[in-house]
This record gives sequence, structure tokens and C-alpha cells, in this order.
Amino acid sequence: MTSKDFSIRDGEQAVKLPEKTDAGVYFIGRIRTPWKDRKDCPKNARESDAVCTVELDPRWAKGLKEVEKCSHIILLYWMDKAPRNLVLQVPRHYGEPRGTFALRSPARPNPIALSVVRLLKVEGDTLSVVGLDCLDGTPMIDLKPYFASTDSVPEAIVGWHKRD
Amino acid sequence: MTSKDFSIRDGEQAVKLPEKTDAGVYFIGRIRTPWKDRKDCPKNARESDAVCTVELDPRWAKGLKEVEKCSHIILLYWMDKAPRNLVLQVPRHYGEPRGTFALRSPARPNPIALSVVRLLKVEGDTLSVVGLDCLDGTPMIDLKPYFASTDSVPEAIVGWHKRD
Repeated sequence: MTSKDFSIRDGEQAVKLPEKTDAGVYFIGRIRTPWKDRKDCPKNARESDAVCTVELDPRWAKGLKEVEKCSHIILLYWMDKAPRNLVLQVPRHYGEPRGTFALRSPARPNPIALSVVRLLKVEGDTLSVVGLDCLDGTPMIDLKPYFASTDSVPEAIVGWHKRD
Repeated sequence: MTSKDFSIRDGEQAVKLPEKTDAGVYFIGRIRTPWKDRKDCPKNARESDAVCTVELDPRWAKGLKEVEKCSHIILLYWMDKAPRNLVLQVPRHYGEPRGTFALRSPARPNPIALSVVRLLKVEGDTLSVVGLDCLDGTPMIDLKPYFASTDSVPEAIVGWHKRD
């Protein structure tokens, strides 16, 4: 992925970024996937059966205690190659401008991506998961247990999106 | 909320934090809720009908275009009063140590909280939502559309958690 993948298209709009950030994040690990180039990443993570690996920095490994009891987890990761100043974007598959916050595009003020993944196993500081679509080497910033009671909303609707 | 709310309990464990952070986040808005003190926050956001407000910084307001078509959105916010060095924690309601990544506690290396909320309306740079449990004034860092196709897993299980 190079910055030219993110050149501004007709209908897109950027803003001036604030002069400084307000808080700092630690990269706590790396995500290993089979995809080395953005064009190879799956279009929909649910359509991929690829087993990916999350390598947590050993510093944090004890934080995994009992994570193996979760069938699904939420991964937050940092899309560090995306521009942060776009407020309107024209995704290729929609063809018209939408607000950044109506999209899951990596281009956003804070380039944090979120994936719900199925957990296969935990070994030491490494997790095997299914359901990712990101580039190999993507920095991870958090992982959390997925609670169906608060995180699952099967009836949720996004107006322009075809229902499965 | 004060730092003494987060004093280390028996069975908890902290690590030395890295010397520096790896990336910066912008606070892009504030969350307004009825709760001024941690003890007043709802125990389970799904049990609260309180209408809360998300005030986006005007700089980013155009990014909301078409967000009103989403029935549910994902909010990411920064729990800036929590310690970041705990790897084992003893939540009062569990009574035994669990790994930080097996918990939704605000105390984690990157204190990013995630809530799935129901969107009532969007007016200018302000959103009205139901389903939050955080303190008034909490800094927001992202909002995303919730897609049932990838984000909803009704059958997900957390081993020690009572099913609803």
C-alpha cells in the first residue's frame, strides 16, 4: 500500500488537521496475515477462511489469561498508512461521496480499525484467529472479549447496504 | 473518578510501560452523559435508556454525511483516567484475577473503550444515542457504522459469562 492509493478523488474533501494529537497509543503487537499488498486483502473478512496470527509483545502476555475462554474477540489495530484528514470519501464500490464516519475506510482522523474475529487458540503470546482482512505486519493496539449481550445487534441496518 | 479508584488489589499485576508511545490520537469530540461520577454510571449499558449526546468537533462535522442512515453505530472513546500498566486485574464482580485482554475494563495499555449504540438522530455536529455508560465529558476518538453482517455474532460465548 502506498500513499498514492489514497489520492483525493472527485467529490472527496479534506480538512486541516489539528496542530497536535491529544494522547498516545502503544503498539502492543503485530498482526500476521497472508496479504502483503492492499489489493490482495479480502474484500469482506467474513468471506475469508484464512487463519491469521496475532503476536502480542511479550511485555503484555500475562494480559491474555482466560482469553482462551472467548469464542470471539474484538481486535483494534492501527492503519498507519492511511491519510487522516478526509471528511468526505468516494469509495470505489459506492461511487458517491459519503462521510468518513459513515464508512469503515482506514482513512479517518484516528486510523483505528475494528474486526470481530473467531478465536481458534492461544499459545503463549500468540493468538490464531479467523476473520481478518488487513495487511501483514499491521500494528495491534487492543483486544477485547466480544460479548453477544452488548456487542451483537443482528437487526442493525445501514440504509444503503444490502442485507445479507 | 480518581486514581485511587484504580489502586492495585491482591492478585493484580502491573508491568513497566514502554518508554514512549508509537502514534497519536486526536480527540474529535466529547460524549455528554448524565453521569458525573464513576459510581453513578450504569453497570450494563444495555440496561440504560438514557439518551446521551455525542458532540463532534465542528472541524469533522462533514464526516457525518449519511451517518443518519445507520440504525446503530460503534463509538470509540478514550478512558483517560485509567491506568495503562495492568496486565492482571481483579474486577469486584468476579473476585479473581483475569487478564486485561479478557476484560472490558478501562484499565488497559490503550484505554480505548468501545460501545455499540442505537442512533436516534443527527443534528449538525451532534448525535443522540442510547446505550452508553461512560462519564460525562469523555473524549471521543472515532465513530463507525455498525454492520450486522460483520459485527454481529449472536452465538459468541465468553466462558465465564452468564448467557442472557
